[in-house]
Amino acid sequence: MADQKQQEDINPWGLKSWTYLSSLRQQSPLIQCITNFVSMDIMANTLLAAGASPAMVHSILEIPDFTPHAKSVLINVGTLTPDWLPAMKAAAGLANQLGKPWVLDPAAVGASSFRLKACLELIELKPTVIRGNGSEIIALSMASIGSTKGADSLHESSDAVESAKSLAKSSGSIVAISGSVDFVTDGERVVGAHNGVPMMQKITASGCSVTALIAAFVAIDPTHAFEATASAFSVFGLAGDIGMELAKGPASLRMHLIDSLHRLDQDTVLDRVTITNFS
Amino acid sequence: MADQKQQEDINPWGLKSWTYLSSLRQQSPLIQCITNFVSMDIMANTLLAAGASPAMVHSILEIPDFTPHAKSVLINVGTLTPDWLPAMKAAAGLANQLGKPWVLDPAAVGASSFRLKACLELIELKPTVIRGNGSEIIALSMASIGSTKGADSLHESSDAVESAKSLAKSSGSIVAISGSVDFVTDGERVVGAHNGVPMMQKITASGCSVTALIAAFVAIDPTHAFEATASAFSVFGLAGDIGMELAKGPASLRMHLIDSLHRLDQDTVLDRVTITNFS
Amino acid sequence: MADQKQQEDINPWGLKSWTYLSSLRQQSPLIQCITNFVSMDIMANTLLAAGASPAMVHSILEIPDFTPHAKSVLINVGTLTPDWLPAMKAAAGLANQLGKPWVLDPAAVGASSFRLKACLELIELKPTVIRGNGSEIIALSMASIGSTKGADSLHESSDAVESAKSLAKSSGSIVAISGSVDFVTDGERVVGAHNGVPMMQKITASGCSVTALIAAFVAIDPTHAFEATASAFSVFGLAGDIGMELAKGPASLRMHLIDSLHRLDQDTVLDRVTITNFS
Repeated sequence: MADQKQQEDINPWGLKSWTYLSSLRQQSPLIQCITNFVSMDIMANTLLAAGASPAMVHSILEIPDFTPHAKSVLINVGTLTPDWLPAMKAAAGLANQLGKPWVLDPAAVGASSFRLKACLELIELKPTVIRGNGSEIIALSMASIGSTKGADSLHESSDAVESAKSLAKSSGSIVAISGSVDFVTDGERVVGAHNGVPMMQKITASGCSVTALIAAFVAIDPTHAFEATASAFSVFGLAGDIGMELAKGPASLRMHLIDSLHRLDQDTVLDRVTITNFS
Repeated sequence: MADQKQQEDINPWGLKSWTYLSSLRQQSPLIQCITNFVSMDIMANTLLAAGASPAMVHSILEIPDFTPHAKSVLINVGTLTPDWLPAMKAAAGLANQLGKPWVLDPAAVGASSFRLKACLELIELKPTVIRGNGSEIIALSMASIGSTKGADSLHESSDAVESAKSLAKSSGSIVAISGSVDFVTDGERVVGAHNGVPMMQKITASGCSVTALIAAFVAIDPTHAFEATASAFSVFGLAGDIGMELAKGPASLRMHLIDSLHRLDQDTVLDRVTITNFS
Repeated sequence: MADQKQQEDINPWGLKSWTYLSSLRQQSPLIQCITNFVSMDIMANTLLAAGASPAMVHSILEIPDFTPHAKSVLINVGTLTPDWLPAMKAAAGLANQLGKPWVLDPAAVGASSFRLKACLELIELKPTVIRGNGSEIIALSMASIGSTKGADSLHESSDAVESAKSLAKSSGSIVAISGSVDFVTDGERVVGAHNGVPMMQKITASGCSVTALIAAFVAIDPTHAFEATASAFSVFGLAGDIGMELAKGPASLRMHLIDSLHRLDQDTVLDRVTITNFS
């Protein structure tokens, strides 16, 4: 029933989303990103446009000095090589130890057994949120590669909901699935975020960027990661909806999406954020 | 006679180019890219806009699991460091072993003897296509640095045609030269692709991106790499021609080029692709 | 008195700025950039739009062959890891030995004691110019971390002028501070460059990019690094001013800024460059 918008749900989620976004703009939390090379530019620009203060800091030597100042940590395994993994684990471990939220993006986890193993090890470090596409969440849930194809999903997000619930229960993380509808689950509750347009999948690292926005929203309210995650999906998707009104293709959509994220106002968020219960 | 458009050649090449592009959109082949840091964003976006499924996977640990799933491999030596070379060789070697096409971009090969040596070693692994600018192709053909200056060419593409033919004969690869006219040779035949505008040279990694598009077109038809390469040049150049109609500078050209690549339709490709025999 | 535009200063600086920019376009000097992953794309595009020939070359194996051909070297410590530092030192040392200018960007120097130590070691290699934001310049001047927060400044540029003068005297470098007004000092003289708009701080690596433009301007006139640095600030800021007339947010500002930099003409530079003495 992902497409069934329940009128009573729309406004509360709009309000939540606006509260997170406006708090983000006021607080400008420092978000540490250990992410793949492809995503660094668009991710940093997405975070800046949303009001956060991104920092791409991935040297293991800098974790002890830097991570304590971050409000949350984003770890993304795209373009992973073995030399990056110790810093990822150190940052995740320190975040845990300090009670800071951290978010895992298992980008293209099905690319290799090396990457799958790395993600499973990171999940043992208790991410607050795991965000992937349908194929990535299914691969993680099954602890098996072969169901993904590079960075693009071979599955509809709705096909991965049961896998996500299972992964949420086993990991204790909020699990979030990007797709034509974005789903968020804590293992029991499931909501679907309906904002966003298909062409966003033609922008490289748009998924990485929404994971970073989740990290920023979770930094604002670490004790309600489920709500923060769903709100981040909707705000990013809404920026895409508005961007699509002006876009002539994926490159102009990328530009208009980031511009729109920067400009989003209260009325638009309250009116257009669409999150529904999924059952 | 690069500028002499031979009427009889135009339509067949338009048809070929459209066949490749429409097949790319339908099949969405997985293209593994081991490329420089500067190019990753624009290259991935170019491949997505064209219809391919890019994957930036460069860890040597992932080659055995991942490369067998790729339809072609792109290797680009920009920002090369010694730790990247083994993965490049492993991916190229495995592609050969599995009968998959792979494409070499000898970016700034003249920057150092280290980079030249790396490229010569890669050429021994039998790339299907080698794509460079005039200076890069001359440097490779002479196995000598000093004729290039960073990433920008000091030579007209037409100055490099004889070098390209020689390199094609010695390597067995299709050799492609970017420039005001783009040339493609198998050592005997030479065609010139006339689409494209000079301002594309003001977009960083536009050359890297067209090499990736060549890898995608070659993935569609590995047994006709000569035709696929010339078609990729034309389709990318045509997207630039159309983008230039709206552009106000190199940054907006980059955006409009990618948008145009995404939107290219059959009539436009049939009408405007311009490839001629060169003799 | 940063905001007090002294009429008599405007035209001479406009003329200087135009001379540098037009020379850059004519000479297209090769600028070697050893820079962070986030900045590579926008930095290369900024340099290309301004007329320079950028080369992202950071392997220590390539320094002996390549650096002698560069007209200046840019070193930026964002996303620093220990394996990059030897090449930075080698390139800076060789630039010194060959009498070439080199420019240091201490990006997020306060992120860690590792990064601070690296910057202090690089400063011993006598950069021609050091360009940072207020927090970075204060951290460097005090040789102490803790006053910066990721890549974003916690200080107004004007708060850092005394630190900049002190750093300029101790290092022998020109010191440049980005901010709402950009300041340049040689330890005695201080000028403020007034072009630019606040939204430029919402574009990731815009600061890195202006440092690269400083490296390009200094390549044109190494013996007047003070003037070249102030002019680079103004030209980049002016491109932002013009870009802002069309921008709807930070992503479109990025595009229009680069387009404007490519198109800047003599009249606009003479009319609108605004640099004043600061005392």
